[in-house]
Amino acid sequence: MSEPTAETATEPRPIAIIMGSQSDWETMRHASETLDILEVPHDCLIVSAHRTPERMYTFAKGAREAGYKTIIAGAGGAAHLPGMVAALTPLPVFGVPVESKTMSGLDSLYSIVQMPAGIPVGTLAIGRAGATNAALLAAAVLALSDEALASRLDAWRAARTEAVAERPA
Amino acid sequence: MSEPTAETATEPRPIAIIMGSQSDWETMRHASETLDILEVPHDCLIVSAHRTPERMYTFAKGAREAGYKTIIAGAGGAAHLPGMVAALTPLPVFGVPVESKTMSGLDSLYSIVQMPAGIPVGTLAIGRAGATNAALLAAAVLALSDEALASRLDAWRAARTEAVAERPA
Amino acid sequence: MSEPTAETATEPRPIAIIMGSQSDWETMRHASETLDILEVPHDCLIVSAHRTPERMYTFAKGAREAGYKTIIAGAGGAAHLPGMVAALTPLPVFGVPVESKTMSGLDSLYSIVQMPAGIPVGTLAIGRAGATNAALLAAAVLALSDEALASRLDAWRAARTEAVAERPA
Amino acid sequence: MSEPTAETATEPRPIAIIMGSQSDWETMRHASETLDILEVPHDCLIVSAHRTPERMYTFAKGAREAGYKTIIAGAGGAAHLPGMVAALTPLPVFGVPVESKTMSGLDSLYSIVQMPAGIPVGTLAIGRAGATNAALLAAAVLALSDEALASRLDAWRAARTEAVAERPA
Amino acid sequence: MSEPTAETATEPRPIAIIMGSQSDWETMRHASETLDILEVPHDCLIVSAHRTPERMYTFAKGAREAGYKTIIAGAGGAAHLPGMVAALTPLPVFGVPVESKTMSGLDSLYSIVQMPAGIPVGTLAIGRAGATNAALLAAAVLALSDEALASRLDAWRAARTEAVAERPA
Amino acid sequence: MSEPTAETATEPRPIAIIMGSQSDWETMRHASETLDILEVPHDCLIVSAHRTPERMYTFAKGAREAGYKTIIAGAGGAAHLPGMVAALTPLPVFGVPVESKTMSGLDSLYSIVQMPAGIPVGTLAIGRAGATNAALLAAAVLALSDEALASRLDAWRAARTEAVAERPA
Amino acid sequence: MSEPTAETATEPRPIAIIMGSQSDWETMRHASETLDILEVPHDCLIVSAHRTPERMYTFAKGAREAGYKTIIAGAGGAAHLPGMVAALTPLPVFGVPVESKTMSGLDSLYSIVQMPAGIPVGTLAIGRAGATNAALLAAAVLALSDEALASRLDAWRAARTEAVAERPA
Amino acid sequence: MSEPTAETATEPRPIAIIMGSQSDWETMRHASETLDILEVPHDCLIVSAHRTPERMYTFAKGAREAGYKTIIAGAGGAAHLPGMVAALTPLPVFGVPVESKTMSGLDSLYSIVQMPAGIPVGTLAIGRAGATNAALLAAAVLALSDEALASRLDAWRAARTEAVAERPA
Repeated sequence: MSEPTAETATEPRPIAIIMGSQSDWETMRHASETLDILEVPHDCLIVSAHRTPERMYTFAKGAREAGYKTIIAGAGGAAHLPGMVAALTPLPVFGVPVESKTMSGLDSLYSIVQMPAGIPVGTLAIGRAGATNAALLAAAVLALSDEALASRLDAWRAARTEAVAERPA
Repeated sequence: MSEPTAETATEPRPIAIIMGSQSDWETMRHASETLDILEVPHDCLIVSAHRTPERMYTFAKGAREAGYKTIIAGAGGAAHLPGMVAALTPLPVFGVPVESKTMSGLDSLYSIVQMPAGIPVGTLAIGRAGATNAALLAAAVLALSDEALASRLDAWRAARTEAVAERPA
Repeated sequence: MSEPTAETATEPRPIAIIMGSQSDWETMRHASETLDILEVPHDCLIVSAHRTPERMYTFAKGAREAGYKTIIAGAGGAAHLPGMVAALTPLPVFGVPVESKTMSGLDSLYSIVQMPAGIPVGTLAIGRAGATNAALLAAAVLALSDEALASRLDAWRAARTEAVAERPA
Repeated sequence: MSEPTAETATEPRPIAIIMGSQSDWETMRHASETLDILEVPHDCLIVSAHRTPERMYTFAKGAREAGYKTIIAGAGGAAHLPGMVAALTPLPVFGVPVESKTMSGLDSLYSIVQMPAGIPVGTLAIGRAGATNAALLAAAVLALSDEALASRLDAWRAARTEAVAERPA
Repeated sequence: MSEPTAETATEPRPIAIIMGSQSDWETMRHASETLDILEVPHDCLIVSAHRTPERMYTFAKGAREAGYKTIIAGAGGAAHLPGMVAALTPLPVFGVPVESKTMSGLDSLYSIVQMPAGIPVGTLAIGRAGATNAALLAAAVLALSDEALASRLDAWRAARTEAVAERPA
Repeated sequence: MSEPTAETATEPRPIAIIMGSQSDWETMRHASETLDILEVPHDCLIVSAHRTPERMYTFAKGAREAGYKTIIAGAGGAAHLPGMVAALTPLPVFGVPVESKTMSGLDSLYSIVQMPAGIPVGTLAIGRAGATNAALLAAAVLALSDEALASRLDAWRAARTEAVAERPA
Repeated sequence: MSEPTAETATEPRPIAIIMGSQSDWETMRHASETLDILEVPHDCLIVSAHRTPERMYTFAKGAREAGYKTIIAGAGGAAHLPGMVAALTPLPVFGVPVESKTMSGLDSLYSIVQMPAGIPVGTLAIGRAGATNAALLAAAVLALSDEALASRLDAWRAARTEAVAERPA
Repeated sequence: MSEPTAETATEPRPIAIIMGSQSDWETMRHASETLDILEVPHDCLIVSAHRTPERMYTFAKGAREAGYKTIIAGAGGAAHLPGMVAALTPLPVFGVPVESKTMSGLDSLYSIVQMPAGIPVGTLAIGRAGATNAALLAAAVLALSDEALASRLDAWRAARTEAVAERPA
């Protein structure tokens, strides 16, 4: 995750990546690495809906005040973190279903995506692809009012397109 | 749900039936009706994890103090209520997956039963059968230290056994 | 969908709600109605990935130029619209899995949410709840740089919280 | 599983952990270890619904007499043990779906949780997490009338909360 | 179900159709009607694994002695009846997964078919087709040592083949 | 599979174990080994519905003439062998869903068990347990008119019951 | 289905639409109607893999000789017709999973699409959409060597594109 | 994939095998190898719906002009390539669901097969078997107007039938 530089330290980081446990980091670090590539400052925090519900309340209730613009939340199994944070903050929340041991992440996916009307969680794919894409989606949101970031994002996408070979090898 | 009588009003009700929305009552009233039959005083409350997260927090953190012994929680879709309440109280929590519109309650079931190690939710069947059984299970817990209730529960079970016909008609 | 007023007609509408067919409107109109309540101007368009692939291409490639900030895309079955639009525009895309006839929307959900790393679609719940939530999520994105909208969104959420009864009836 | 000490030997153990076969022990030992940590005496028994149905009948019919307060039952595949024991005893029964070879425990889960109205089984998550949680839930039930155990359980939960790091590493 | 005639009353009926509740009769009567057509005497009984476990025990332990050759067992949800009866009798048991309310019989199917090695249940299709086929399969077993029944079964199959039209209408 | 002895060679073998390909043998040999233990003569044949449909026709049409009493058929994926053989012979057919590579045998199970009314296949569990149980079920059918086999089967079951330890180790 | 005209009667019809039972016609008539629109002569036949296996054998073995170019086969549940016909003819076979009563056509889909390497069935969507598309795909195959049909197909597709409204109504 | 020989270079290759990424080649090379065995010239190309949508448009719009007769398209996850290409070309398109990491290819299958009426994709099995079969199906289409290829295909099938052993070993 990005180390604070002189410049970024003076203003709040726009994105928080939160996850339910240390074991989710193997998945969620792909969100962090993608934001690093796009030069988007962010925080990475462990906030467990089940083991630290009060930390979750405090974090989510204070997220807008803390200067965050968007929250990326990853969790697995009965994954309540993204939806509960979305219930406690008006900020856009993007959820990453972490692959679970016995259900391959189907439980995580259903627990995150099937939110009732009123509290949205923009849900990405199960696992690593979802973590990467949560970062890209959060960056696309920030890019709406940050032309430099929009250019970096465009360049990143163009480079990805360029990198596709014509034929398999 | 049971109206307070002179006797029950003087002591706290041992069971709270909570649900995420009015629409869950169609399912959860079967829990209430079963407790009524077994003469177990209880409260029925709407506590939405997503729309009233602070009410949920207050309810769950105060549940033991309020004199509840067991909590029955029903919710549908991305059903976070049972697990979140279980994270906020040491009392036994029994979860009822309410049948959802598009996934027939599979999303509710997975969201409730697949809790991570540390925070248990004793989960019952999807829908009405689960609501009835949550009441029976909560009553069985109370019956461990209430011989009169144990006798009523035994009688209820015996009557159910008696009622099974020998042949289909 | 919101009729253009004098004011909104002079500037581009920030949100496009697109859908694969007329039959999706029954679901997607809940997105439009929610944006109407929040006073967010928007367009509602039928853009079929399969029947009008060139219309889709033109729409998506020109969406940023047209002044849109966010795209809400609903589709059912082998639902390719959200992902293909996301491949053709850098704008944030939110996908709504429309309930399908034979698979209850599971095919729609998997077709939308399981995007490969590189092209994100923030996916909402299957059906009407998802359509409503796509609107709320898009509004939350716009609210990051629109304090008046942020206030309206806060008020809407507070009213929803207020409306939750204490007990089922 | 806890070895009988002088003290515990003089009174019946309150919890029985039963399982369908030796191969379930790999999962169910996590229930036993959790009860050991909480200092809750318990028995661990193999009781197969299919291979030893008469042993199951004898065990379940005599469980209350034997002094058990709660039964934890684990089984996999067409997992009938928890439900059949629940049919034969008025004690609370908590079921653990053991991960099956070909269906990852979905068959175990459905076989245990989908009990008809009348005979409840409080079902936990598939596999190891479920075994641990069955122990915690059973302990929470006992703690309702055992203040010392309630304190140990509170301490265990608090320690778990304390152990959650602030940031992933 | 076949009324005892003078002839059939003098010898035990070879097939028992058992089911978990009166509500299963809507499905299981198709088994009875099929056996009636094939002139196979049989009994239809309600035997609930969960509500009348002792009746089930007595029935299954005595089934061979009672002269039954094959048992057809139908049940829904967490369907334990076929497997438990198979654990208690050496006779061939054929199971019919009755369509359940919330899971369309998938829970019934998995609970019946996924028996562990050692105790087989020959499982048929979910619902009415399965009930009819359980009767045909049981009749095919009896026909191995009953040439007249074998002829009736052959004739029934031939008539079904004859009845298939050449073209849809 | 049992080698023909002087005695068994003089009369037809009562059971045929057929499978769709050599790769199914890893699963189906458990059926053969179980029949060997029970001393039931049988043939093991590869009969592919898809690669050798004419061999299948010839085998199934001639199975009763050949002296078989019961057929055990194993296949994976779009598993048509058990159902097609059942369509071509009046003998009881027991189906074993072989675990498939990508769907863990769910496709095999559905392809075998969901037969339409008229053509039954008694279906066992996915994989090895199902293969063993198909043998036990076929033996139970033969045992209806073979007291010696009935005794061996009883003994096998009793030994299995005896072998269940009291406690896990 | 198209009535033979003077012209088409003189040469074999290129497409056969076959189905397992009369009840499949409700679905499969959409294939016939689509071919009628495209003026592609075809036969509609009931060929049941399970009830008329010999008719199926004769049909499939003789299909190329009869002048058919492509076969459309619809079936539900344990749907063996498409795969078995594909095993018996070298012609391209397109399969339509008919929606089944209890599994919504998932069993049909898996039974048709999961064919082993060697015998392909080009599978379309479950139900009516699949029937229509099977006709379109078969027509596209014929159009490779029939320019007039290719033009009619192009026109049909263009008309469909034209018919998509700009906005929902 | 087949190297161009003097002969084949002078005329367009009739089949294009396209895939969404290099990682799909592990699966799709089985299509290419099967076509090589059948001596069917073909091209293998990487065309990503999501990363190179414009390459996809150009390829698909020009496929008929380029002389292709049939397109084989493989993709995984939210697999939009086969359906989008089918929307852009009148040629027959056969889709191969590549096994995905977290959902074993179920997402790929649903995304490819559940196309709406109007745009067919003939879908094969998940993974390697599907890739092989897509090649066989495409070859069967070409064989309708290529007797030499029809003979090679017949020979290939006959050899496969010959290769099936009588008994497992």
